[in-house]
Amino acid sequence: MERLRKAIMTEGKYLGRGILKVDSFINHQIDPALMVEIGQELARRFMPLKPTKVLTAEVSGIAPAIATAMVLGVPLIFARKTRPITMPAEVYHTQAPSHTKGSIVDLMVSPEVLGPDERVLIIDDFLARGLTLQALAELVRLSGSTLCGFGVIIEKSFEDGRSLLSGFGVPVESLAVITSLSDDGIECE
Amino acid sequence: MERLRKAIMTEGKYLGRGILKVDSFINHQIDPALMVEIGQELARRFMPLKPTKVLTAEVSGIAPAIATAMVLGVPLIFARKTRPITMPAEVYHTQAPSHTKGSIVDLMVSPEVLGPDERVLIIDDFLARGLTLQALAELVRLSGSTLCGFGVIIEKSFEDGRSLLSGFGVPVESLAVITSLSDDGIECE
Repeated sequence: MERLRKAIMTEGKYLGRGILKVDSFINHQIDPALMVEIGQELARRFMPLKPTKVLTAEVSGIAPAIATAMVLGVPLIFARKTRPITMPAEVYHTQAPSHTKGSIVDLMVSPEVLGPDERVLIIDDFLARGLTLQALAELVRLSGSTLCGFGVIIEKSFEDGRSLLSGFGVPVESLAVITSLSDDGIECE
Repeated sequence: MERLRKAIMTEGKYLGRGILKVDSFINHQIDPALMVEIGQELARRFMPLKPTKVLTAEVSGIAPAIATAMVLGVPLIFARKTRPITMPAEVYHTQAPSHTKGSIVDLMVSPEVLGPDERVLIIDDFLARGLTLQALAELVRLSGSTLCGFGVIIEKSFEDGRSLLSGFGVPVESLAVITSLSDDGIECE
């Protein structure tokens, strides 16, 4: 994923407090060719595990999740943070802190779209502390389905979310790893 | 789009108050093969107008917008409803009422991703009263860019949003038209 690494190094901006801004190609604005490549690569890595559904959290996870789901040919579910009136009263529900919103967010999935017999691949844009991904895995557990793995576009290895996720005993894949983020610059592998 | 029409007729559910639930294939859960077809068809209809950016509103517009942007090969911008800390203080800002959330939502786009020299195609999941699409067009106007057209997956013709949008003098395209929605059933063209 040299194209991804290059985009991070040239267009990514460090905003302080560990926050990497990638609004020009992943969040807010999406580079479709890059997102297709991201989906192809995430799908390639997880295809042997035969996922039957992809799960992500709205909003920023939707693009990489749909790009991955298109290649895998399986449905994509995005967990809702606010309850639309189309959602039933009984849902799988969990919570996670949002680093970029500065608050606790709800994550809800309807049992209408996630039953107990699926093999679920969780996809998101970032792996930082891993708390959103952990919450998504909790939704999989509540549904009774099997978790296949975690796939993200960008991992901030210095926040060590990987350790948290290792407890699930499934593969954790990231397409770019930020090893250092400071006013001196971005280091990306 | 026979596949779309079939999905609406077999999986769509009327919830009352004019609300059509399509959570099993467009919102909440997305059928990726159907979404690819939707993107191909919307791109085909607007390609002659040479859009340089696709604009939508988070959350439910992202899937059709990215599917369309992938085919057109142009960047996709999703207007934010809440301000992430990565967004600058000065943004293009407008508001629209949300029928499914029952409240007024903000719509914000950063001038960093939408300058004055673009040809913008607006994509969303539904055309009902047209108020979200109108608000997105206002963001285009604020940016100084040119509006190319409006493309949606499903139009509810009895809510007459098309009349509102006709004032913009650009094409309005929908892939399925719901002409009647009641406890007696869904009529879809």
